[in-house]
Amino acid sequence: MTDSPYASRMNSIPKSFIREILKVTEDPQIISFAGGLPNPRFFPVRQIAQATADVLAQSNGAALQYGRSEGYTPLRDYVAQRYRHTKGLDVSPDEVLITSGSQQALDLLGKVFIDRNDTIAIERPAYLGAIQAFSAYEPQFCPVPLAEDGIDLDRLAAVLDEHRVKFFHTVINFQNPSGISYASEKRATLAELLRRHETIVVEDDPYSDLRFEGIPKPSLRTWLNRQVVLLGSFSKIVAPGLRLGWICAPRPLIDKLVVAKQASDLHTNSFSQRVLHRYLTTNDVDSHIATIVAAYRSQRDAMLMAIEAHFPPDIAFTHPQGGMFLWVTLPEQLSAMELFEHAVGKRVAFVPGTPFFVDGGGTHNLRLNFSNADEDMIEEGIRRLGQIMRELLQAK
Amino acid sequence: MTDSPYASRMNSIPKSFIREILKVTEDPQIISFAGGLPNPRFFPVRQIAQATADVLAQSNGAALQYGRSEGYTPLRDYVAQRYRHTKGLDVSPDEVLITSGSQQALDLLGKVFIDRNDTIAIERPAYLGAIQAFSAYEPQFCPVPLAEDGIDLDRLAAVLDEHRVKFFHTVINFQNPSGISYASEKRATLAELLRRHETIVVEDDPYSDLRFEGIPKPSLRTWLNRQVVLLGSFSKIVAPGLRLGWICAPRPLIDKLVVAKQASDLHTNSFSQRVLHRYLTTNDVDSHIATIVAAYRSQRDAMLMAIEAHFPPDIAFTHPQGGMFLWVTLPEQLSAMELFEHAVGKRVAFVPGTPFFVDGGGTHNLRLNFSNADEDMIEEGIRRLGQIMRELLQAK
Repeated sequence: MTDSPYASRMNSIPKSFIREILKVTEDPQIISFAGGLPNPRFFPVRQIAQATADVLAQSNGAALQYGRSEGYTPLRDYVAQRYRHTKGLDVSPDEVLITSGSQQALDLLGKVFIDRNDTIAIERPAYLGAIQAFSAYEPQFCPVPLAEDGIDLDRLAAVLDEHRVKFFHTVINFQNPSGISYASEKRATLAELLRRHETIVVEDDPYSDLRFEGIPKPSLRTWLNRQVVLLGSFSKIVAPGLRLGWICAPRPLIDKLVVAKQASDLHTNSFSQRVLHRYLTTNDVDSHIATIVAAYRSQRDAMLMAIEAHFPPDIAFTHPQGGMFLWVTLPEQLSAMELFEHAVGKRVAFVPGTPFFVDGGGTHNLRLNFSNADEDMIEEGIRRLGQIMRELLQAK
Repeated sequence: MTDSPYASRMNSIPKSFIREILKVTEDPQIISFAGGLPNPRFFPVRQIAQATADVLAQSNGAALQYGRSEGYTPLRDYVAQRYRHTKGLDVSPDEVLITSGSQQALDLLGKVFIDRNDTIAIERPAYLGAIQAFSAYEPQFCPVPLAEDGIDLDRLAAVLDEHRVKFFHTVINFQNPSGISYASEKRATLAELLRRHETIVVEDDPYSDLRFEGIPKPSLRTWLNRQVVLLGSFSKIVAPGLRLGWICAPRPLIDKLVVAKQASDLHTNSFSQRVLHRYLTTNDVDSHIATIVAAYRSQRDAMLMAIEAHFPPDIAFTHPQGGMFLWVTLPEQLSAMELFEHAVGKRVAFVPGTPFFVDGGGTHNLRLNFSNADEDMIEEGIRRLGQIMRELLQAK
């Protein structure tokens, strides 16, 4: 056969540059600001061991058997209750589907909603995992620029006027890659705009528990009950290796997602779900999160201080109030790829901006992760980056 | 919006009748031959608890961190070595991708290969999970009849002559739902046919370790190295709740599958993979499998004896040499759905044949599972089924 045996979508899915970089950065000598890895120092290893022992002693094999496609019922209950506890949202356990991490939630939404050439609206820059997941269903992407206080509402309104948009995907708190959060007033106006256009919004929210300062801001579900699909994850507050996330959506959509879930992998890991549920219900999760938040806040502060001390003056950067990332904008004459190549030579890594854009752009941006390096390493890594920037600028 | 907001594929994916039946059969009063559940009596609960304790004590958090999309390297090594040990196949660990159960392997193959309206060849009857997974990519199915010794080669040859077939999916040992296995000579001829047409074959093989009698038969990879995609699973030999399976394929295809895997769920559960690997390398797996095989053999024998004792004489059934299922063919005047409705009233469940056919058919067939009921229950359940059959036949 001379032509490709593969489906056309395989030409659309970008191979994850980040996961490729992670391979490079497995070298422990490299100071990596590239990944989106939580700090493993805070993984509750001992508590997970205890939870596993309890579950296996009590479950009589059920933890190792096939389970329901919707997820382990007590874990769905927990997620629903936690929405009430943390966000004041009234969620029924029937509105929760447990997924193999938040990435699978994105894939299932692509599977349920996207026909080839359907239009979906995303942020610019966008979360790379969402670009990858949705690309497999070959949509037309409409990227809408982000400002410091959230999406550009005029541009989004224009997109919604021009296209039948299947959904709008947003990371509303401490966005990956930019670190920005939507202002409260912008959320209200956005909700009104989406209501008027009857547009489904995917509120992808893995980071909201990681707030360092300021007051928590309302979910779009506060205003828009039936059009909002909430995505959540235990990866950032407990551990990503358990691969547990969820979708919270109106029942009719959950029914469709369950069909897609059955076709995709039958159901989420029974063992992980029961172990996590046992962990969550026998430990003080809020206090555990507070510990992570305190550490990441210090790490963010260390990174901001180091940037102010070491980067050349005409370099812009965001000041995230939470999450794991900040976003740097270089002057026109500096390319992020060029910087990356020199940085790896000096054993520092980050993610250049281009993979977060589906329409070009990002050539002068970098995403810096501050959750997975300690403060000394952050200071040293940023110092090296600043030095390379100065050298490159002088050579121009 | 008056028209459906969902993708067209949502009209194609059949909702799993089996998983719907499983909900009915959660009633412990029901004798269920419906599911495809392994007998939880053989889950190595204590050993998994020990393996988890070891892994968490030794891995220093790595078991809870993000992992590689290809899978945990030592587990890939184990799978490759086991192919040598059990099937004499020379497999490199680079040819192995760990998946979230075998169902995800089917989904990833659909994602990588199938454009809408592409032709794929399947068995008739076919594994329902494969129908579901592939349906999401909207192919044209060409079902090719199965005989007692395997696929109808003339019909398959005609399909391969007429269509450009993306791949042929087969469950070559102890097929689900029929229980049949391909004869050795048929495998050789099939391999030659597939070679001539350069057709990729998906050899889906979750059951081959569960052989009760007879000599193991060669994999198609014995003859057809580069065109064979092998699927395997730990669900039947260890435990399905860990959701661990694999794809073994040539490197260029593995590269494509890894891209699809990243987009689908980033990577398979790190925790499960390490726990399973520890279990596999610190226990005598072959002896564990031998225990399961001895039990399932007795359960199959109990079912065959009960069928011979209690079913009316003009009912045909397969005599599987392994696996978990046998397949019953009713006389024309008896409908499997009618039987099902009466059976549930008498607290016995099975799967009627229709969901295993994409082109109609199966209205006089039933799939009986013998792995998840003990011998007394099997005798009692089959007795009840036989009684209903006789009553229905008399009423005609």
